[in-house]
Amino acid sequence: MTDILEKSQARQRLRSLSEALDSGALKQVARILNGGLSPSDIAHLLESSPPRQRVLLWKLVDKQLEGEVLQYMSDDIRADFLSEFNAQELANLLEDFESDDLADLLQQLPDTVIQEVLDTMDEQDRQRVEEVLSYPEDTAGGLMNTDTVTVRPDISIDVVLRYLRRHRTLPPMTDSLIVVSRRDEFIGVLPITRMLVSNPAATVREVMDTDIEPIPVSLSDTKVATLFERYDLISAPVVDENNRLLGRITIDDVVDVIREDADHSLMSMAGLDEDEDTFAPVLKTTRRRAVWLGVNVFTAFTSASVIGMFEETIQQVVALAVLMPIVASMGGIAGSQTLTLMIRGMAVGQVSNASVRWLLNREFLATALNGVLFALVVSAATMVWFGDKTIGLVIALALVINLTVASVVGTLLPLTLKRLKIDPALAGGVILLTTTDVVGFLSFLGLATYFYA
Amino acid sequence: MTDILEKSQARQRLRSLSEALDSGALKQVARILNGGLSPSDIAHLLESSPPRQRVLLWKLVDKQLEGEVLQYMSDDIRADFLSEFNAQELANLLEDFESDDLADLLQQLPDTVIQEVLDTMDEQDRQRVEEVLSYPEDTAGGLMNTDTVTVRPDISIDVVLRYLRRHRTLPPMTDSLIVVSRRDEFIGVLPITRMLVSNPAATVREVMDTDIEPIPVSLSDTKVATLFERYDLISAPVVDENNRLLGRITIDDVVDVIREDADHSLMSMAGLDEDEDTFAPVLKTTRRRAVWLGVNVFTAFTSASVIGMFEETIQQVVALAVLMPIVASMGGIAGSQTLTLMIRGMAVGQVSNASVRWLLNREFLATALNGVLFALVVSAATMVWFGDKTIGLVIALALVINLTVASVVGTLLPLTLKRLKIDPALAGGVILLTTTDVVGFLSFLGLATYFYA
Repeated sequence: MTDILEKSQARQRLRSLSEALDSGALKQVARILNGGLSPSDIAHLLESSPPRQRVLLWKLVDKQLEGEVLQYMSDDIRADFLSEFNAQELANLLEDFESDDLADLLQQLPDTVIQEVLDTMDEQDRQRVEEVLSYPEDTAGGLMNTDTVTVRPDISIDVVLRYLRRHRTLPPMTDSLIVVSRRDEFIGVLPITRMLVSNPAATVREVMDTDIEPIPVSLSDTKVATLFERYDLISAPVVDENNRLLGRITIDDVVDVIREDADHSLMSMAGLDEDEDTFAPVLKTTRRRAVWLGVNVFTAFTSASVIGMFEETIQQVVALAVLMPIVASMGGIAGSQTLTLMIRGMAVGQVSNASVRWLLNREFLATALNGVLFALVVSAATMVWFGDKTIGLVIALALVINLTVASVVGTLLPLTLKRLKIDPALAGGVILLTTTDVVGFLSFLGLATYFYA
Repeated sequence: MTDILEKSQARQRLRSLSEALDSGALKQVARILNGGLSPSDIAHLLESSPPRQRVLLWKLVDKQLEGEVLQYMSDDIRADFLSEFNAQELANLLEDFESDDLADLLQQLPDTVIQEVLDTMDEQDRQRVEEVLSYPEDTAGGLMNTDTVTVRPDISIDVVLRYLRRHRTLPPMTDSLIVVSRRDEFIGVLPITRMLVSNPAATVREVMDTDIEPIPVSLSDTKVATLFERYDLISAPVVDENNRLLGRITIDDVVDVIREDADHSLMSMAGLDEDEDTFAPVLKTTRRRAVWLGVNVFTAFTSASVIGMFEETIQQVVALAVLMPIVASMGGIAGSQTLTLMIRGMAVGQVSNASVRWLLNREFLATALNGVLFALVVSAATMVWFGDKTIGLVIALALVINLTVASVVGTLLPLTLKRLKIDPALAGGVILLTTTDVVGFLSFLGLATYFYA
């Protein structure tokens, strides 16, 4: 663990690995790779390597570690490696996987391969995996493991302790046992730390915690994450609509959801996928980005056509061409701030219909105030630059108009998009900036045409 | 817990609360608020409320819950409420706080108040808090609690179990006991789940895990988070430079770090703070945003002055004014994609000096390919629109130039800024977009001046 604590050391290792790779000292690389590095370290190393090195490194990974290393990889990269295996190899590889990870992974494979892999598994394992596969990946059902340790309410703590001792190990992240009825209905949880400080003669019923509400299997993964964050949970039971225990969700999988949700907003606003492989090869990258650039060519021509309406005015007063990007960009900046604040607020569940009016008011007032302030500053600078009072007046008015429009659009757009089931983080920025460009050029050049006519 | 599972219910509660507030039915509000809502729910409700309602709600919160509710609030909002208390009230309020939360909170107060609060605490508590206060907030020391349960290696599991039973409760998130020497030096950890499946006659030494490396007290919180994510930790011991145990870090505090780090990139790119209160009042918001708009006025005038150099050319060919924003914005889009990918890659520790050259190559190639593709598309559209072959040639060349410059700047800028200890997420976007505007206008108008001369 200390080995990777210091970045410089990790870098040094990566550099010595890459030198060893370059010089073809593959045995040396394999020794570094399989000696002392944990599977998650190896996965991180693979994710931090360009494609050619990545393939080489993967070939050097100990066969026995492959399954575990795959568990720690991001979806995009894992899919590349998985495509190399046949069904039997996959089944062997996936033996150690927890059912939720296994289901996630199988969902990336073609349907025929999934069936083949399932056919090679034993009955019990297959049932478990098929259960998890039956729930969408982004719900509590898709996140849960089926490796619960359950107890009945009427036995004593002492009996529970003896029962546990019959296990060779307990599932990872077991912070509590789940108390269920004879018919597997959820009753409560028995936190292990509480059990350890209890009288061994007490019954589970006396010690257990019944305040905990189990998680419905269809709850979205984002809401599961909110519950874990809000109640500081390590694990939580998952039940079906009849309160029957199906499995449990653990914090390690929830942390991945939190990380992905948070990355999602950042990456989407630049038209990227949160799973985006930092080291994706040229052609894959080019193709994905071309889509985004294509969308933006379209919006750029829309703004340009607005300017095109005012060619005569610009010919008359060329200073307008010099100044018009200022109006557009100030609107874009102000609107992006509002939009980002709204997207973050919606992501953490702070924005409700009840508070939208207040937010709209606040954004409108704050942006209008800044609009007036910067209208004065920019207008003064413009008058000094071009020695023309009219142009100062026109830019001041246009700035106030564009900034206030930006604040309204920035507030209402993400909510509207969400209602239309369009991702605000992906589409919000493009629509907002097109709006502030169009409104900026239209108001500035339109007012100029009026005043100079 | 189920109460807040469904958004509609949470919204309904918020709406009924806000109606009750409006109608002045404060008793009813207090009943809803203090009956059944957990402290974290109340904190979330306060964070999701506009200022006027927030102050009213806070007054209605049960005095006994205030301390706990404060623990779950974000820094910015908490600071507002804390300013209302005197030192003695604060000391009473803060009694239940864990030492790391308490230290975080005290750091928000004026130095004189901190001393007053510390003076009212008993000797043991004060020492604990002073210990944590002595470490920077964003290090392992600032994150840790001092509530460790330690055992010696030479005693038996049975003795440990009896020792634990003497406790009334164990600290939250206790998934393992920490094994220390007589001089408090870290030796290993004893996972509780492993202890439960072990022979009670075995010694701690036989059962404990010594593979775990303790976290150095000065490690940055981001690196602590990486360790927790990579090794699926629930808690981890913290040691000083002499391997002496100082405390432990728990996953709940690490999740906050992960959330804040992830939010940081998103919010900074819009010039916002990750702690930004969604419901900050008008004047506070206006002031903060004015700074960002001010920076952008400056950069907007820089771009404008570039256009100003070509007034004569524009007067001659007005179509240039119509088309120039296309060149600038396409460069901005391409550059933002590269920049965002780099910032994310750096945040998760995937980008090292060893891989920069590969990334630069890939970004250059991918963007150049897209540059050529879109140069053809845009140039064809332009020639059709204006019926002028020269302008099609000029815009094609300018696009290729601006996109390739954008890819190089987008790749190298965040690394350079980091080396200069400037936050890439905050400054990166502004510098990049100024560059793509300047290069876009300069190349497009410069080439036009050459070709039309």
